[in-house]
Amino acid sequence: MRRMDKVSLAHKLSLFHDHWHPRIVGELNGQHVKLVKFQGEFVWHHHEHEDELFLVVEGRFRMEFRDRDVWLERGEFLIVPRGVEHRPVADEEVSVLLFEPASTVNTGNEAGPLTRSTLERI
Amino acid sequence: MRRMDKVSLAHKLSLFHDHWHPRIVGELNGQHVKLVKFQGEFVWHHHEHEDELFLVVEGRFRMEFRDRDVWLERGEFLIVPRGVEHRPVADEEVSVLLFEPASTVNTGNEAGPLTRSTLERI
Repeated sequence: MRRMDKVSLAHKLSLFHDHWHPRIVGELNGQHVKLVKFQGEFVWHHHEHEDELFLVVEGRFRMEFRDRDVWLERGEFLIVPRGVEHRPVADEEVSVLLFEPASTVNTGNEAGPLTRSTLERI
Repeated sequence: MRRMDKVSLAHKLSLFHDHWHPRIVGELNGQHVKLVKFQGEFVWHHHEHEDELFLVVEGRFRMEFRDRDVWLERGEFLIVPRGVEHRPVADEEVSVLLFEPASTVNTGNEAGPLTRSTLERI
């Protein structure tokens, strides 16, 4: 990723195939743009200090909250404010763009086997 | 826009038709998510303190820099670092998602007739 190259979401998504493992595809103003593929159920967690944006690039998934679910389709986004417990669940593979502070760890307060604390730039 | 409602880009884009007039469709971590339609030539400008992300939702446009042009198609984004002069040009209408600090003014250092200093949330 060179400074001021344009980024094709489809191209970047073709470079990896594993789930729940975000890659960094852009950085600006202390924030990261990431791409990730979800399939199955993630862990319940929240982020103490970070609001998190999820934009569906391809496919669909649901964001579970403690009191309701929100289904997200391609071309839709959702902002999960800091402190709010959530769990993404995807019955089939979905590709998602994330926009969040560079400090954000994928599993938030719930460190465990799905935690990815160092992310690669692709 | 209620807290934690999902946002459909296509729906928000159906709500306005003018050019070079961004609307705020999301806010997180001191950053704004905006939608804007471009057609024609904007003004040369830069942002002193803000990096700016342009993601094409529909259509195509070119970002002119002083030393080159970058064509952006649907599903591609470009980050313009602070301090870098740029000018978006769209031969036909294009719909673009912006991610940038809440402090960002569309015309940067070049206040003029295209400046939109107060943006509405839709």
